[in-house]
Formats: sequence, C-alpha cells, structure tokens
Amino acid sequence: MAKVNENFEKLPGSYLFAEIARRTEAFQDANPDAKIIKLGIGDVTQPLVPAVVDAMHEAVDEQRSADTFKGYGPYEGYDFLREAIVENDFKARGVDIAPDEIFVSDGAKSDCGNIGDILSRDNKVAVCDPVYPVYVDSNALEGRAGEYDVDAEEWTNIHYMPTTAENGFCPPIPEGKVDVIYLCSPNNPTGTVLTADQLKAWVDYANENDSLIMFDAAYERFITEPGVPHSIFEVEGAKTCAIEFRSFSKTAGFTGMRCGYTVIPKALVRDGQSLNDLWMRRQSTKFNGASYIIQKGAAAIYTDEGARQVEQALGYYRENARVIKEGLEDAGLQVFGAVNSPYVWCKTPDGMPSWDFFDLLLEKANVVTTPGAGFGPAGEGYIRLTAFGDREATKEAVERIKAVL
Amino acid sequence: MAKVNENFEKLPGSYLFAEIARRTEAFQDANPDAKIIKLGIGDVTQPLVPAVVDAMHEAVDEQRSADTFKGYGPYEGYDFLREAIVENDFKARGVDIAPDEIFVSDGAKSDCGNIGDILSRDNKVAVCDPVYPVYVDSNALEGRAGEYDVDAEEWTNIHYMPTTAENGFCPPIPEGKVDVIYLCSPNNPTGTVLTADQLKAWVDYANENDSLIMFDAAYERFITEPGVPHSIFEVEGAKTCAIEFRSFSKTAGFTGMRCGYTVIPKALVRDGQSLNDLWMRRQSTKFNGASYIIQKGAAAIYTDEGARQVEQALGYYRENARVIKEGLEDAGLQVFGAVNSPYVWCKTPDGMPSWDFFDLLLEKANVVTTPGAGFGPAGEGYIRLTAFGDREATKEAVERIKAVL
Repeated sequence: MAKVNENFEKLPGSYLFAEIARRTEAFQDANPDAKIIKLGIGDVTQPLVPAVVDAMHEAVDEQRSADTFKGYGPYEGYDFLREAIVENDFKARGVDIAPDEIFVSDGAKSDCGNIGDILSRDNKVAVCDPVYPVYVDSNALEGRAGEYDVDAEEWTNIHYMPTTAENGFCPPIPEGKVDVIYLCSPNNPTGTVLTADQLKAWVDYANENDSLIMFDAAYERFITEPGVPHSIFEVEGAKTCAIEFRSFSKTAGFTGMRCGYTVIPKALVRDGQSLNDLWMRRQSTKFNGASYIIQKGAAAIYTDEGARQVEQALGYYRENARVIKEGLEDAGLQVFGAVNSPYVWCKTPDGMPSWDFFDLLLEKANVVTTPGAGFGPAGEGYIRLTAFGDREATKEAVERIKAVL
Repeated sequence: MAKVNENFEKLPGSYLFAEIARRTEAFQDANPDAKIIKLGIGDVTQPLVPAVVDAMHEAVDEQRSADTFKGYGPYEGYDFLREAIVENDFKARGVDIAPDEIFVSDGAKSDCGNIGDILSRDNKVAVCDPVYPVYVDSNALEGRAGEYDVDAEEWTNIHYMPTTAENGFCPPIPEGKVDVIYLCSPNNPTGTVLTADQLKAWVDYANENDSLIMFDAAYERFITEPGVPHSIFEVEGAKTCAIEFRSFSKTAGFTGMRCGYTVIPKALVRDGQSLNDLWMRRQSTKFNGASYIIQKGAAAIYTDEGARQVEQALGYYRENARVIKEGLEDAGLQVFGAVNSPYVWCKTPDGMPSWDFFDLLLEKANVVTTPGAGFGPAGEGYIRLTAFGDREATKEAVERIKAVL
C-alpha cells in the first residue's frame, strides 16, 4: 500500500491570506461603494524595464531558427548570467565569489524550499518569529519540525527567535546548539536589517558550532543605507558557514517571470562533504535549469542601461515606502522597516491585537494590511504594509489612515 | 553540527554521458579529421514553431506596461493553459480530466523528481530496467532505495523489472507487493510502448494493492500507431491509482524553455488523503508557478495554427526515427522502438557488449550512440540512438553504420 508523507497531516492550514481575502470580501459586499486599497500584497505592480523586455524579445527570436535555438541549458545556469552576477552583485562590493558558486534557478522560493533535500532530517532548525512561512513549512514537510502545538502556534522541534522592537529586531543567539539557522535581511515581514556586527556574531556562532546559516537576501536591492551588508559574504568567515538566496522578483519585477539564484561557496563543507557538490547533484537530479529566455532577461539588468532603469523602478517602490512610513509616523504610530525594505512594520496603537487593527483600518479607512500575528506569535501587535502598490493609491491610503487615527 | 543528507554519499557517480563525452573527445583528439555525428543526445535541435514564438513575443510585450504586466501567477498554472490541456490532450481523446487536476510546472523532470515529497519514505519502489535515472536517483536521495550494490548495479530496496526483447518490453507484474511503480510509455530508453491491455493489468494490480503508478508520458506525441494509449487515464480505473507526467520538451521543443505538467486525479486517495491536495500544498510551499511567458508559449501549441506547425515539426523527428530504424535493419540489426518514439533501441550484433559496440561505431563510423548498459544491467547488449538530430547528418550516420557492419 502506497503511504503518503505523514508530515503533511501535521501542517496547520495556511489561513493568513485566505482570511484576509475573506474579511475584505465580506466588508466589500456589505459596503459596495467603498473603494478599498490593498497595501497587504507582496507582489510587484510596476512593469519590467525596457532593457529586460528587449533582451527577452531577442531571446525569443533566437528560438525561430535552428542556428540560434536553445535546448537544454546548464543545470546551474548560463555562464553569461552567472558571470554578470559575480561581477555586479559580488565583485563590485569587494566580495570574491566564483561563477561556479552560483546556481541560477526558477526562483528563490524554490531554492529556499528545496535546499532541505541536501540536509539530514536530523538537524535542529532555528527561525525568526515572525517568519516567512516557507522556511518552517518546508522543514516541517521534511520531518525536521516535530509536532505542531496549536496553542503555542509553534513546532516542538523548531527553535524560534523572537525578533521584535524590544531586541531591535536582531534574533538572539541561542544558548544551546542549533544546526540550521534561517536569517532574512532585509527582513520579510519586519522590513528591518541586520548590521555587519550582528551578522558577524551569527557567522562566528555558526563556524564555532558547525552550523549552517540560510541567508535570504531577496530584498537586498532595497537597502539604501551605507554600511548595511547586501550579502552575508561581506562578513568574514561566512564562506565556511552560509548559503545565500537571491531573487530577481523584487529586484527587477520578476515575480511572474521566475528567476533567482543561490550562492554556495566551495569552502562550505559539512560531514566532510562539499555542499556546492551536493546541491549540484540535487539540481541535476531534480531540476533542468531555468528558462533561457528568462535568464537573458535577468542578465539585462546588469547592463548599464538595464541597471539604470532598474534603479529607477526601485525608486518608485522606495518612495512608496517613505510615503507610508512618514504618513504613519505623522499619525502617531511607531514604524519600523521601510528605509531598506519595501515592507513597513507598524506597531498597533495601544497594544491593540493585529487582527483588531486590521479590521479597524479595513472598516474605517478601507485599507487592507497584513496582521503581524499571521507571521508568528511575536508578530502580534504589529501590521505589515507593502510599498509595491500604485503611488497615488498608496498616498490616498495613508491619508485615510491618518484621518481615522 | 549541521548534518547533510546521508543518502548522497550512497549515490554512484552518474558517469554515462561523461564517459561518452570522454571517449568521443579522446577519439576526436586522435583523429582530428574525423567528422563525428552524434546520435546519442536526447535534446531537440529544431526551432520553436512560429505560433509559439509569436505567442511568447506577445507575452513579453505585455510586461512593458503596468496594465498588462503579470506578477505572481497561480502555483498550479494559468487557467488558459490548464483548460487548453484538458480540451486537447484529454477531452479530444475521450478522457475526462478537470482543469484542477492539472498542475503546470517548469518541466516533467522537476515533477518526477519532486513527487516523492508527498510520499512516505516507507514505500517499496519498482522501476523498469533499463530506466530513466531520475526515478531511481530521486528515490535514493529520499531514502527509499536502501543501499547501492556496486556489483549488481542495483539498489537493495528497489524492485527492478527487466524490460527486454525477451518479454516484449513489458515490465512483469511482481509476485509480491510494491507500493510505487514507475512506468514510462513511450519508453525512454527503449522507445517501446505499453498497450492498453498491458496498462490495464498494471492499473488492476495497483488498485488491488493500493499501489501508485507514476506514469511518465513525456514522449506521448511521438505515438503514431492507433490503439496505443496516449494517457494512462484512457485505461479504466487509472484515476484511483495513477499520476501522469507530461512535457512540452519533446512535444514542442521546450527543453530550454521549461514547461510541463502533472495530472493528479481528485479520485486518487491514499492513507485517506487526496494526493491532489498534497501536491497543491507541496507546490504552494516550494514552488511559485511556471513563467507566464513560457505558459503563453505552451498554450499556443493548442491553437489550430500551432497544432499544425507542431505536428510538422514532430514529423521531422519521426522521419529521422524511420531513417535510423530502416537503415539499421538493412544492416542486419534487430531494432525496437522508433515507430512511436524518438528513440531507437538496437540490439548489438552477436551479443557484443554495449560499450564495445559503442566504441566500434565511434571508431569505424564516427557515430556517437548511447550504450544501453548505461541505463541499467538489462540494457546490456543494446545501444540507443535518437531521432533529434539534423536530417542530413542522421542519413549520413546511418549510411556509415551500414558500411561498417
């Protein structure tokens, strides 16, 4: 008798965005004239930049003729893209990463989700609370999380690190040993960043304990302040303890195109084995490379013209983040994130529960946000707003929020 | 201390294509004037059809403007593609499959490799011998294969089903129970097909034993003979025991574009759980949908114009297969496959070992093939040739082979 993976049954439902949609729809039905503005979504809205569109047209045209047609590409991505990544995302920042330490894929979510394939089930995993759910759910499916405790909203075998205003949004280093640590900076959902010193403490911990850091840098392009690390490999010692995930989704509007990459240094060895080799073997067994056309589009962001256009597009979202942050602060709210991130993490007034504040903003301002409690217990007392919307709608939403507070 | 997946160390090296490349290169170096023709590769060479190229250009252009820009798509694929699949690949053959039983992905290899995520480690897996290595390697990495026996070239916990000329290339139904059975028809590497009766026997076995059939139909479009099932769901009872993998790679030249799909009927339940639900949860956790542009390209093969063009392109490969088959038969060789497949499976003369025949053809005819032994012990005594090459080169290769035998 075929048996299914017993861990699926343990997973709690993923009700956050479904519940937001349900409440929003119910309100709209009861108030058909209300013009609802959504600042809850994590998806981009601005078009691809011309350099990327042009590059993809060229790549599509190459498929018309046998001379230029592309069949199977390298599992790990085309050299033209890996070399552009190395030059622009690493060498330009003084970080020495080789092209064969880069694995291009169909997106950072796939890599974050699949990376567990190269790890033993017998690892103690640590995550921040609040957290991007993929880290937890993928480990739960692979049997590393233990049992789900409904009351605590926690898995019994996962080590949670509260990251809140009280600790400056820096996950505290555990007293005991953990094996695999997920860090995300700029953080989803809090929008805050880890400094070089904070990352250095984690790198030292990981090297001392032979732990692994899974560093999610999907929002790296939103960093505006000098001195904030864009890559964990800017930190000395990281090459022997860290894997880094990068995405073109928010960098260049690729959420629907699908492209990202993962950096696994050759110096990263555990149990006597090269993790770079293991991931190459995993990808060659269970993946067949990212689409050529999409890789050509991604490479275009590293041309002079593409880079200029992408910076301009990012400026649009950065300005939205500023508008939200300053507006909420004007309204007397305490706001985090936004400066180096498309995410604005806002404390609810007077310790109001997340969902109550969500309802208040929906009903009085007709603005949809995301309740922080949906990202984990330590997200209670916060809401998340995103800078990915239309400028005018964003301004309008902020004015409405100010008017009701 | 972070621990790696202990199963990687058990995997034997995947030396087949590397060894072919090594021998080919050595021969070329020693014989720089030799004009080598490669009939070993499994990659397509003909360009995409105009309807597909045009559709992808349109989709790329939509990304220029915020009004038509596409962000995150559905995890399971866009309705326009799933509905076209249902209409053309299933309804047109009298098979009742619903759009929400279709999961579009970045390729059948990803799905074949990742499907194990929804299964318990505690399943007995059966595969054909010779076999497409992804079925075995992905299960080995997930801990279902036991230990690798170097001498037997087999995993201790996998049930191998020899499929050879002696049994008409129909895998024998096991006497005992197996839980998960991988079947591939038209078969890679043998190019042979399973008839409706043969499939029915497997479906009955699976239903009786609550087993699961993983049916790989990646080469379905190469079927030319009437009466050969294009989908396992043409067989009564399959919806309660089978998952089917489909690919646009060989159908429409998408090896470098990346698109495929998996069919999981809602009626498929094991351990009281819907496998359709489990796969949806798996995909939403570890995958973010296939690229919009590529899905638009794939949908174009179902338009009248696209379908006509794709049939014409497939005709090119089918004719190559015919040229190879008839040429080798003229040379006195015993040949299988080719009629419903791009693969030609050829018995070596006088029981010569695969690698010896490979060397002979390389050295005397300057033609590269794939030794059958590379696909498993029961592939010994065969070579595989593929119909994906250039027509003139294919003809020339066949003439050269005829001249040396």
